[in-house]
Amino acid sequence: MTTTPEMLYLLSADPADFAQVVAGMQSADVAEALRELTPKAAARVIEALPFDLAVQVLDEPELEHRVPIIEAMEVKTAGPLIDGMSADQQADLFREFSDEERVRLLPALERKTQQALELLLRYPPETAGGIMTTEFLSVPSNATVEDTLQTIHRVGGAKETVYAIYVVDEKDKRLRHVVSLRELVMSDRNQRVTEIGTQRKVLSVTPYVDREEVARLISKYDLLAIPVVDREHRILGIVTVDDVIDALMAETTEDVQKFGGMEALDEPYMEITIPRMLRKRAGWLAALFIGEMLTATAMGYFEGEIAHAVVLALFVPLIISSGGNSGSQATSLIIRAMALREIRLRDWWRVAIRELPSGLALGAFLGLIGASRILLWQHLGWYNYGPHYALVAITVAIALLGVVTFGSLTGSMLPFVLRRLGFDPASASAPFVATLVDVTGLVIYFTVALLILRGTLL
Amino acid sequence: MTTTPEMLYLLSADPADFAQVVAGMQSADVAEALRELTPKAAARVIEALPFDLAVQVLDEPELEHRVPIIEAMEVKTAGPLIDGMSADQQADLFREFSDEERVRLLPALERKTQQALELLLRYPPETAGGIMTTEFLSVPSNATVEDTLQTIHRVGGAKETVYAIYVVDEKDKRLRHVVSLRELVMSDRNQRVTEIGTQRKVLSVTPYVDREEVARLISKYDLLAIPVVDREHRILGIVTVDDVIDALMAETTEDVQKFGGMEALDEPYMEITIPRMLRKRAGWLAALFIGEMLTATAMGYFEGEIAHAVVLALFVPLIISSGGNSGSQATSLIIRAMALREIRLRDWWRVAIRELPSGLALGAFLGLIGASRILLWQHLGWYNYGPHYALVAITVAIALLGVVTFGSLTGSMLPFVLRRLGFDPASASAPFVATLVDVTGLVIYFTVALLILRGTLL
Repeated sequence: MTTTPEMLYLLSADPADFAQVVAGMQSADVAEALRELTPKAAARVIEALPFDLAVQVLDEPELEHRVPIIEAMEVKTAGPLIDGMSADQQADLFREFSDEERVRLLPALERKTQQALELLLRYPPETAGGIMTTEFLSVPSNATVEDTLQTIHRVGGAKETVYAIYVVDEKDKRLRHVVSLRELVMSDRNQRVTEIGTQRKVLSVTPYVDREEVARLISKYDLLAIPVVDREHRILGIVTVDDVIDALMAETTEDVQKFGGMEALDEPYMEITIPRMLRKRAGWLAALFIGEMLTATAMGYFEGEIAHAVVLALFVPLIISSGGNSGSQATSLIIRAMALREIRLRDWWRVAIRELPSGLALGAFLGLIGASRILLWQHLGWYNYGPHYALVAITVAIALLGVVTFGSLTGSMLPFVLRRLGFDPASASAPFVATLVDVTGLVIYFTVALLILRGTLL
Repeated sequence: MTTTPEMLYLLSADPADFAQVVAGMQSADVAEALRELTPKAAARVIEALPFDLAVQVLDEPELEHRVPIIEAMEVKTAGPLIDGMSADQQADLFREFSDEERVRLLPALERKTQQALELLLRYPPETAGGIMTTEFLSVPSNATVEDTLQTIHRVGGAKETVYAIYVVDEKDKRLRHVVSLRELVMSDRNQRVTEIGTQRKVLSVTPYVDREEVARLISKYDLLAIPVVDREHRILGIVTVDDVIDALMAETTEDVQKFGGMEALDEPYMEITIPRMLRKRAGWLAALFIGEMLTATAMGYFEGEIAHAVVLALFVPLIISSGGNSGSQATSLIIRAMALREIRLRDWWRVAIRELPSGLALGAFLGLIGASRILLWQHLGWYNYGPHYALVAITVAIALLGVVTFGSLTGSMLPFVLRRLGFDPASASAPFVATLVDVTGLVIYFTVALLILRGTLL
């Protein structure tokens, strides 16, 4: 479904007409189409939609600017719409609202919604508690299959999912068992719910578990939902698989952007204003620039050597960039392996003993190419590296060996250091590693040059 | 659930003992535990497990080395186990088998399995057809809710999911409607299935649609499964949400590794052998190195200028790395926005008119920092940039403005160029962009220097 902005502007002349056009569409598509309208126009369209579809559209995270859209509505319209939304989306909304907006809307909501919001807003948005919903289906442990099916029939419409039914102890309210709708439908109706389904321990998480860990568990055990429980093992809410996919997508976007060397935008690229995007980019860019200034200091330190042997300067970009590239490879491998829990903090030395020989091998390989290039150019007469060209070739080769090995080690160890210090290992971006490696790469290169060329070129 | 290797080696002394220990565990945990054993030992353990659990364990993609495990089994054991697996996992397995192994096992499989394999292996593994399963639940369009519930009761156990039921025209077998188990359970039993559920067009994909697009659709429309149909709109199979999560995870890993500047490993970092990992890394590293050699050529071209004004060489790493960093930011933004379908190929000019002012602003900002640094160091007497230090500062500032602007533009346009040429835009890695920008950055820097310093330093 693609909607051209032109079509939309035309249609938006009359919200009722527009509402009629979109009424047959999927709610996610309506949400996407509404992105093209101003918040005010979108508010008018939503008000003109059938109530259920209006709620579904507001429930779509795809509706990027729903905060200003709701701000453009009157309280008596917005209240019931918000009451109809799922609890996790209500919480997302209230996290983004200004204080005035909260004060305006909160009294207009049902008591039930207010209570759910109070619970959900306690948790940070990147935790299980922050992405869970309170609309789960539970039955007491003395219920039968028939009782449970009737409960679903009665209240299922208001629940986020009816595919996982949580069986709660009738006395102490602890979560005792979980059955799937599939197991229910396939069982004898007179059986107790506690007797059907697999009898393994119920998988659950506590509210402060990171959303990435929740995603990993749901993915590993192929769940449709996972319960979030308190310390007494009473169920607070559930995280469903579709929320986890949204969380995974958002997490990936963040990681890719951080790895590119900036703060995560938290907004789509085409929608963020340029000044806001610049703020997200300028910080890291300036930090990296200031770090990279050390290269000018290092080069200044070797100014005398460069003046003596200008030929040395020619290979500076080649050598330091090779260190950065091998470091970038190593970093991307490690931060991904960490995200997938393939590697833990205590595995740092296992990584180091893999990266050391790898770096040496890759460095030797590049050194060989580099030296061959110098010798070839010299012999073909394409460039004259002076009488000591062979020594220059050896210097470049040994420097590459050292720089690439150092790059691989730095790139692989940086995520461990960041995690150990309590930072996100994904902040170990390619530019960050390159900057670290550039300064040291220069020192390695000129030190090798001093050792090999002293008495000849230097 | 963490299992220490020590515990496992101890237990693996007797496969039957080990099988008893793991029998109470979740199949994904058993699969994870078996990774620590040799294929032979793991094969013995699986043979000792209850049949259903053994099948579930083999069905787990977490069981990394299931190919050698099955190779270590006799045909008469392996055959029924493979028959029990889900069709998409059978296909994954056969994709990895050697030709001899296929010849050994195929005749031992049921006719039904052979047919499913024949269908599924037709499609590349990164397409909808490649990740779909053929075990979906369908009913004819004249069925009632009661008929459908009975069908589920009868055959539901053998299906990958029973939460989406596909309604197929009783005559031409076209996919006509889809109902969820939730809708079934909540409806009157005498209704026709075609009358219940939403009456919108059924979402479907064709077999060659990319798995990332399948993931995007499932995520956008919050589906539990999506049908894969042929040209006559007859259903071939379904892709379920758990397969999509696995595909998303794999796709993210690939993208991060490509963005780091290498081929995707396709194996966990700690498990791939070092020689195999080196092959995946050395190719791109050598290609980038050869590209970067142009910097030596460019520097050689300006050797005379460097000899005259060694001070120019000092800022080479600082200036070219700034271009690489801004390019890396822009690339990561664009490849992610492309993956999320926020940006299409035809949007290139919209991106360009955002990146041009952004690059200019960021470049001006860095130029200001760079020039201030030179002036400050000179005034504080920390370094002597010579009598023309003010001109050097201006040269550095203008070069940074040009290089950062060029970097942002190159970084943002490269993914478009790659996609246009039919390559994966995610191959526009940070090192790739840096290499492109380094050479041009040098040319920009020395050209600016020639224009500003001619008659003084040069």
